[in-house]
Amino acid sequence: MRIALGVEYKGTEFSGWQSQAGVRTVQDCLEQALGRVADAPVRVVTAGRTDTGVHATGQVVHFDTDRHRPPHSWVRGTNSQLPADVCVQWAQVVPESFHARFSAVERSYRYVIRVARGRPAILHDLCTCVHSDLELAPMVEATRTLLGRHDFSAFRAAGCQSKSPVRTVTRGEWSQSGHWFWLDMSADAFLQHMVRNVVGTLLLIGRGERPPEWIGELLDGRDRTRAGPCAPPEGLYLSEVRYPPEFDIPAPLERLRFW
Amino acid sequence: MRIALGVEYKGTEFSGWQSQAGVRTVQDCLEQALGRVADAPVRVVTAGRTDTGVHATGQVVHFDTDRHRPPHSWVRGTNSQLPADVCVQWAQVVPESFHARFSAVERSYRYVIRVARGRPAILHDLCTCVHSDLELAPMVEATRTLLGRHDFSAFRAAGCQSKSPVRTVTRGEWSQSGHWFWLDMSADAFLQHMVRNVVGTLLLIGRGERPPEWIGELLDGRDRTRAGPCAPPEGLYLSEVRYPPEFDIPAPLERLRFW
Repeated sequence: MRIALGVEYKGTEFSGWQSQAGVRTVQDCLEQALGRVADAPVRVVTAGRTDTGVHATGQVVHFDTDRHRPPHSWVRGTNSQLPADVCVQWAQVVPESFHARFSAVERSYRYVIRVARGRPAILHDLCTCVHSDLELAPMVEATRTLLGRHDFSAFRAAGCQSKSPVRTVTRGEWSQSGHWFWLDMSADAFLQHMVRNVVGTLLLIGRGERPPEWIGELLDGRDRTRAGPCAPPEGLYLSEVRYPPEFDIPAPLERLRFW
Repeated sequence: MRIALGVEYKGTEFSGWQSQAGVRTVQDCLEQALGRVADAPVRVVTAGRTDTGVHATGQVVHFDTDRHRPPHSWVRGTNSQLPADVCVQWAQVVPESFHARFSAVERSYRYVIRVARGRPAILHDLCTCVHSDLELAPMVEATRTLLGRHDFSAFRAAGCQSKSPVRTVTRGEWSQSGHWFWLDMSADAFLQHMVRNVVGTLLLIGRGERPPEWIGELLDGRDRTRAGPCAPPEGLYLSEVRYPPEFDIPAPLERLRFW
């Protein structure tokens, strides 16, 4: 039997998603908790591995098991075995044709920025702080250039293992409320560090250090070394993974906002 | 010279406000950081000591120093010496007649509750989770009974050192947005654990386990053992301290919300 889960986590105290010896990862925590509920080893497959410090409100995983449990037991039982900074939002039996990674048709990330002179204490690990003013209009204009199918080599981490640097960006929407700015970005899939490299570049444009047209030149140049720095992980949230409607996968339960 | 500071902190990793040997407290962190900026020992006086795990978005303190620094240096310099979970929002020179505790005319707390079957991961230490439905109307009705001048012995911690159990509650306002509920409560001052004991009692009323009239009986009975349990600290925020207008103390810079 194949089960899909919706997973939320605070990335701060995790060395990212992927299982690794000697460090605390979301995958290891989740597999251990599921293993206790199943009373058998469980291996999970994720829609997208997130990096150290990156959060998720809408992660989706699947696993196979021959243990029969009602879906609410996979939620409550697993949550009772998980540490406070990771939880299962929902569980659902899915057909064998469902695959958390390969069936996904769209991933969405939200990048949250606090623009203020001082720094916050309570939300210090849940947002990225920018201490100088940001202009929304040039960032909106530059983000529009990224929409559609492009070679994103300019925004790809050196260690990225994807075969192709071509991705289709379906959404790139900036919002603002008071001193909070956030970018909602969706694509068929993302290259490693792609959202953070894009945000680091857009911030230079928002600060007026570069013109909006710069981002088109970077795309054309396909040279990572010419783009902006990688923005910090603490502002980044994997917010949603979408699947074909026949799988009837629930939307994320928690839509986080601080404004 | 007397300086007032606005202070924000996340209470999770602190053993409360007050300086204590062998544990991490907000007062000790702040005094050490200020001491480095002043290059001399600094002792701070707070508007209100908060308990372990309780947060503050609007704490106010004062200290005396003979070191001359512009107000923005007390903010930036101190913040550069403070850990990530505490920060100074503003600094202002005040007259010697100002006293963070004795000049305060009103304290406000916000208590934040997430009502949902599951538990959150990202906000796990920033709210109190209630897993059963809450009715707002009876809680609103019961809270109204607390307004005005009363003997709050029924909601006072056993170890409370206040001379009098009489306090004047000036605001008790419930709000709701989706699965978030919050209570904003103001008084001239609060007894130890008063807000949390009130909330623990109101939650029994919101769940329908007790009628709204019960809170009046508890007030009259002045017996702590008959009221509800003390609600957990992670939902509680010291949100504002007000002073007479002649001191011109700034309002808190950050108004936290998750809804």
